[in-house]
Amino acid sequence: MPRYKLTIEYDGTPYAGWQKQDDRPTVQQNIAEAVEKFCGTPVDVVGAGRTDAGVHATAQVAHIDLPKEYDSFRIMQGINFYLFCPMGLPEGPSANRIAITEVEPVSNEFHARFSGKKRHYLYRVINRRSRLGLEAGRAWHVVEPLDIDSMRAAANILVGHHDFSSFRDTQCQSKSPVKTLEQLDVEPVGEEVHFITSARSFLHHQVRIMVGTLSLVGKGRWSVADMAIALEAKDRTRGGPTAPPDGLYLTKVDY
Amino acid sequence: MPRYKLTIEYDGTPYAGWQKQDDRPTVQQNIAEAVEKFCGTPVDVVGAGRTDAGVHATAQVAHIDLPKEYDSFRIMQGINFYLFCPMGLPEGPSANRIAITEVEPVSNEFHARFSGKKRHYLYRVINRRSRLGLEAGRAWHVVEPLDIDSMRAAANILVGHHDFSSFRDTQCQSKSPVKTLEQLDVEPVGEEVHFITSARSFLHHQVRIMVGTLSLVGKGRWSVADMAIALEAKDRTRGGPTAPPDGLYLTKVDY
Repeated sequence: MPRYKLTIEYDGTPYAGWQKQDDRPTVQQNIAEAVEKFCGTPVDVVGAGRTDAGVHATAQVAHIDLPKEYDSFRIMQGINFYLFCPMGLPEGPSANRIAITEVEPVSNEFHARFSGKKRHYLYRVINRRSRLGLEAGRAWHVVEPLDIDSMRAAANILVGHHDFSSFRDTQCQSKSPVKTLEQLDVEPVGEEVHFITSARSFLHHQVRIMVGTLSLVGKGRWSVADMAIALEAKDRTRGGPTAPPDGLYLTKVDY
Repeated sequence: MPRYKLTIEYDGTPYAGWQKQDDRPTVQQNIAEAVEKFCGTPVDVVGAGRTDAGVHATAQVAHIDLPKEYDSFRIMQGINFYLFCPMGLPEGPSANRIAITEVEPVSNEFHARFSGKKRHYLYRVINRRSRLGLEAGRAWHVVEPLDIDSMRAAANILVGHHDFSSFRDTQCQSKSPVKTLEQLDVEPVGEEVHFITSARSFLHHQVRIMVGTLSLVGKGRWSVADMAIALEAKDRTRGGPTAPPDGLYLTKVDY
């Protein structure tokens, strides 16, 4: 059966995450239902990574096997058509939060998850006194001023090959807590702070715990040296808080 | 009574516009109710401009007269607290779409509408083949490729002191169709096209009709010269279509 690679954009706010669930709307399930309506048979939608509830994507990747060959553009338009009114969400402007932005034929060797060489994430913090209006649900609101330089120094401690047990959710099912963090940049953008990070793979909640812990450094509650101590401890209770899903965007998967 | 200037950010998607209505949630009404809860008496919220249903703001301005003096920061926090659960909207992340971002005391001579010297708007177009996911409701989706240079040339024809009857909604209540358009820039930003415009004041739907008409030029259906002909005609039926509210942001009011 011909295999296709999908690039997917979504606002994660109304969904219970990527992964299919019995009773709540998820991104995977909405796409699977749209694909089934398009091609007439149930199809597995295999994603590059399972984003949590409330996490967004500008370029999540998935693959599907279709019963026959189609033109890529026709697949994109077809799935998008059936995504128009996703299951379990109110109608109106807020209903349409998933879009297939690209479709391309790939060999049957291609696997959205196992062939992924690097995942890229952006985490957006809005650092100001007033609550969020336009960006509610799309960024983490931090009131206390964040010091960029100290967060950069602390972020540099995390880059590299480490045991990230202190930055791993207790529910994490990964066999090993050892990962190679390739990038963790801290960039001020107007009233926002962007955390830009990439790795072959991340532990469960790793990006959110790294950002939550960096926020302690940025607020001056932790020193840069405290970050090294937390990393060394290899103990989740010694890491900082888990930042909310709102600010997290899966921006790219390299193959 | 002491007067205060409010700077307001909102996602216009769930609201029936700025202006108070009897039966549908509006931005003005939600703020008025929050102010009343804060200070204990009904208060008029006078805005710089009436944004349409679905139009957003990063910095709308309004003034209010309070029964007594308060610290500005306390007013901001107080109104924001009561805005948490706006009338007529579902609870959850989508409920919180208005934020007061700044409060300052002003003299009783200050009037949010009549003292306004210039209004600034941004109009966002996303120019790509696939539908919108993350930015649904926040930009106008245009599929056909837009030519920037011809739109810039056509936009320049509109800048200046003109009779804008061709770019004025038939419901417009303004006494005169003659306005001075100070700026109408066309800027490509990745897959987006931004229209940045400012004037002392605009006619009803003027920005949306100008953008809708420029889109005809950008798609090559109109020549640049057709824009001059439309302007000269001083007749709404000779202008282009009204672009949807989704892409429009009130970004600043100068005093």
